[in-house]
Amino acid sequence: MSRVYNFSAGPAVLPEEVLKEAQADLLDYKGCGMSVMEMSHRSSMFNDIIVEAEKDIRTLLSIPDNYKVLFLQGGAWTQFSAVPMNMMNKHHKAGYITTGQWATKAYKEASKYGEVVELASSKDKNYTYIPDCSDLPITDDMDYVYICQNNTIYGTEYWELPNTKGVDLVADVSSDFLSRPMDVTKYAVMYGGVQKNIGPAGLAISIIRDDLITDDVYPNTPTMLMWKTQADKDSLFNTPNCWGIYMCGLVFKWLLKNGGLEGIAKKNADKAKILYDYLDQSKLFKPTVTDKKSRSNMNVPFVTGDKDLDAKFVAESKAAGLENLKGHRTVGGMRASIYNAMPKAGVEKLVTFMEDFEKKNLK
Amino acid sequence: MSRVYNFSAGPAVLPEEVLKEAQADLLDYKGCGMSVMEMSHRSSMFNDIIVEAEKDIRTLLSIPDNYKVLFLQGGAWTQFSAVPMNMMNKHHKAGYITTGQWATKAYKEASKYGEVVELASSKDKNYTYIPDCSDLPITDDMDYVYICQNNTIYGTEYWELPNTKGVDLVADVSSDFLSRPMDVTKYAVMYGGVQKNIGPAGLAISIIRDDLITDDVYPNTPTMLMWKTQADKDSLFNTPNCWGIYMCGLVFKWLLKNGGLEGIAKKNADKAKILYDYLDQSKLFKPTVTDKKSRSNMNVPFVTGDKDLDAKFVAESKAAGLENLKGHRTVGGMRASIYNAMPKAGVEKLVTFMEDFEKKNLK
Repeated sequence: MSRVYNFSAGPAVLPEEVLKEAQADLLDYKGCGMSVMEMSHRSSMFNDIIVEAEKDIRTLLSIPDNYKVLFLQGGAWTQFSAVPMNMMNKHHKAGYITTGQWATKAYKEASKYGEVVELASSKDKNYTYIPDCSDLPITDDMDYVYICQNNTIYGTEYWELPNTKGVDLVADVSSDFLSRPMDVTKYAVMYGGVQKNIGPAGLAISIIRDDLITDDVYPNTPTMLMWKTQADKDSLFNTPNCWGIYMCGLVFKWLLKNGGLEGIAKKNADKAKILYDYLDQSKLFKPTVTDKKSRSNMNVPFVTGDKDLDAKFVAESKAAGLENLKGHRTVGGMRASIYNAMPKAGVEKLVTFMEDFEKKNLK
Repeated sequence: MSRVYNFSAGPAVLPEEVLKEAQADLLDYKGCGMSVMEMSHRSSMFNDIIVEAEKDIRTLLSIPDNYKVLFLQGGAWTQFSAVPMNMMNKHHKAGYITTGQWATKAYKEASKYGEVVELASSKDKNYTYIPDCSDLPITDDMDYVYICQNNTIYGTEYWELPNTKGVDLVADVSSDFLSRPMDVTKYAVMYGGVQKNIGPAGLAISIIRDDLITDDVYPNTPTMLMWKTQADKDSLFNTPNCWGIYMCGLVFKWLLKNGGLEGIAKKNADKAKILYDYLDQSKLFKPTVTDKKSRSNMNVPFVTGDKDLDAKFVAESKAAGLENLKGHRTVGGMRASIYNAMPKAGVEKLVTFMEDFEKKNLK
């Protein structure tokens, strides 16, 4: 079988040329006689891989010198605990904006470690919009303000950062990481699992302003959840996910070669426009996010309003080589995740398929 | 370049036929049109992979039904915290036997969460032996007794488990995991990073007796460090290291095809005997572990007693395609790690090289 177009919300499609390079080098990385999966993390070969990966992500995001880049295990979920354990150290208080399931999970986890204020929420409309964040009840005694920048399940994305009134901003960027330029200096911490836009599952990347890396953490924080543990050892305190770091490094090179984040942002906007333009005029399919300024360029949920028809669409699109279009159970219908590595041709094929399906099924 | 013999202590050599299978399927796993690295962890394809992997490790170790198998991130290091956080819930006290750096790190980490007693140690002789564990000062009020079963740095291995006097035994088996049959029922918890004997770095496997999986954990334990979190969701609470699980699954099949743990134990014993027999009669090289009943079949440290000669050996062996023989800095000299995937031919080539080196350099 040839490769399908994979619209999975994550783990997700990776660039084909990156996979081919990994395949070619799998048993013998650059003539060293072993696989990257077999290399000591203390070897000079692996050191070159991790140093180069860090250099490249610094270039892509123009990360200033006073920010550390950490390659971590345990996913974004582990950071739901690590963020409050490392940061709630002055006032033991933080503000969270809940725009979906992941932000809500982070909010609940943080409440173990201090006082947590829900600053705003879009729960009233099943998280189909980003709230107005221009004048939230943020107070000086909050150690940070927290957002989930792109909401994978609901298909919303912050296009403007909240006015945090001078309080540090923490963002889970798992599902729009490296999808467009982001001004790192506007964030105290930016982190995400890599398995949506960047690489294979099992790795998270945290970009942390260095004054936040401290011993002054929540009492008895596990050593592995203290950011300082890995920051002091350049992510090599213990054995990292070496293969994941290698794969992300290849993707960073692929991004650099293809116009960097400016380049990929334009491609992502083009792909999203093709899909939203079609949805906005369709008589069969409806986008679930009608508030255009809240729409994600990464995840596009849509429904027909008829569960049987949705199921038929998912089955027939799969048969046509358009995989993983079933929506999340809390939204229903369909969802097309169109991350960095989804080619424009994949979105075009999807829209053509939808047009055809609409013709056949519109009553 | 052809493949080298890689004596790395971990991450370490993997079976060549397993790497070839992963390479062949890298862009299109069994005709599904995508890489395992691109699969949703909620897909039926990935579900088949993880279910099969669990089934196979259960077969290999004859794991009883009342033990859970968890595929976790964060390495053995994260379990250094998770063990006391999940298990020090009755008497808030545990006993540790410190036979090397890793057991000592686990001991120190546990002391954050309760009273920790050092039951025995081999520190007096730089960890070159396993202490007599037949009658340790273990008391009923200990929640568990902890060992590191194979000491990678020092080259020692427990061939007999401690007499725990009825108290639950917890073992870090990172560096002898699946290297020989082990009676799971003798352990309350057996866990390890996979990157030495089983698969690529970034995955740990914990085998836990189910009565130890509980909500009654240390106050404010991070959700991801509660064993119950992953146990309740069959390791799919959040996105796991899918590629790591897939690779381990291939290695499980390779083990099953090659005689299971009985088969690999015999091969490992043969390889170790070749190397120890040579070392015990050599006039140039000396094994650092002279206590034969403490010797590891996995990691074999040795020295010439002359630092310059050691360095010469490491350089020349590397040039001959025998990689990563440099010893750990705390032991010095050399170390050959001869895990499951190291072929007998690799050990034979090493011994031939050592014989030749001895002839040329013995004064």
